[in-house]
Amino acid sequence: MKNDSYFMAQAIAEAQKSLNEGGIPIGAVLVVDGEVVGRGHNRLLQAESAILHGEMDCIESAGRLRGADYQKSTFYTTLSPCTMCSGAIMLYNIHRVVIGENTTLIGPEELLRESGVEVEVLGVAECRELLERYIKENPDIWEAELERVGYSTD
Amino acid sequence: MKNDSYFMAQAIAEAQKSLNEGGIPIGAVLVVDGEVVGRGHNRLLQAESAILHGEMDCIESAGRLRGADYQKSTFYTTLSPCTMCSGAIMLYNIHRVVIGENTTLIGPEELLRESGVEVEVLGVAECRELLERYIKENPDIWEAELERVGYSTD
Repeated sequence: MKNDSYFMAQAIAEAQKSLNEGGIPIGAVLVVDGEVVGRGHNRLLQAESAILHGEMDCIESAGRLRGADYQKSTFYTTLSPCTMCSGAIMLYNIHRVVIGENTTLIGPEELLRESGVEVEVLGVAECRELLERYIKENPDIWEAELERVGYSTD
Repeated sequence: MKNDSYFMAQAIAEAQKSLNEGGIPIGAVLVVDGEVVGRGHNRLLQAESAILHGEMDCIESAGRLRGADYQKSTFYTTLSPCTMCSGAIMLYNIHRVVIGENTTLIGPEELLRESGVEVEVLGVAECRELLERYIKENPDIWEAELERVGYSTD
């Protein structure tokens, strides 16, 4: 059955794909009318990118959709979307965002809600475990990522 | 002299470059310590992209800077940054944003200010004229762009 768990599993598969490429395991899929129309994962390391978070990579992979399609779409992402990705979600008026976990990092979920986006946090252990294991095994990379966005790691 | 007008002229040159490529004339440059470290222009049409607004293309071209560099940088953009680009500006704690014009479209400038970004609107006629002429000559393209982000054009 194509429910939230089904699509979140696809987002997790994207996170796993990033890990296999040597990247940070965060993934996302975009769904319109019960069909996956975009898939993406964090490619900051792989593409030496400053903008390709999993959600941005996913939106880009979906191509240039019509407004009506964005407005009925659901976004599945393994980690709570950051400020940039939340801005993209608001730009395209994505209807609903389903988040795997928001304990490792949390983005502006309230801002999304205030702007009319339905936000649901599933609390999926696998999402958190994938990322936490990566952080534990790659503390220098993770610390550099946090420094880049001004998070104190003291 | 390398003042705001000097760097805005470089952002306008990027907008012109987009126009020459058949794209939407919006451009941006990112400046750290008086030096341009990134340049970009809207490439939605050229790259069939959903994310490469001028500001995103510029941030990407700057590469992966250190947090300390983003935090002292100034962003020059010919048009008021949209929600996505403003989110990217907030993610990287960009210090100051200098906007060519905000009459054709206006982004969440107050949100930027509230999050601590210095925002200055220069009101440069050339920025507005470049974009307005493009819109007049390409009404169908512009209307499709607005539809994509849910703006009513009635």
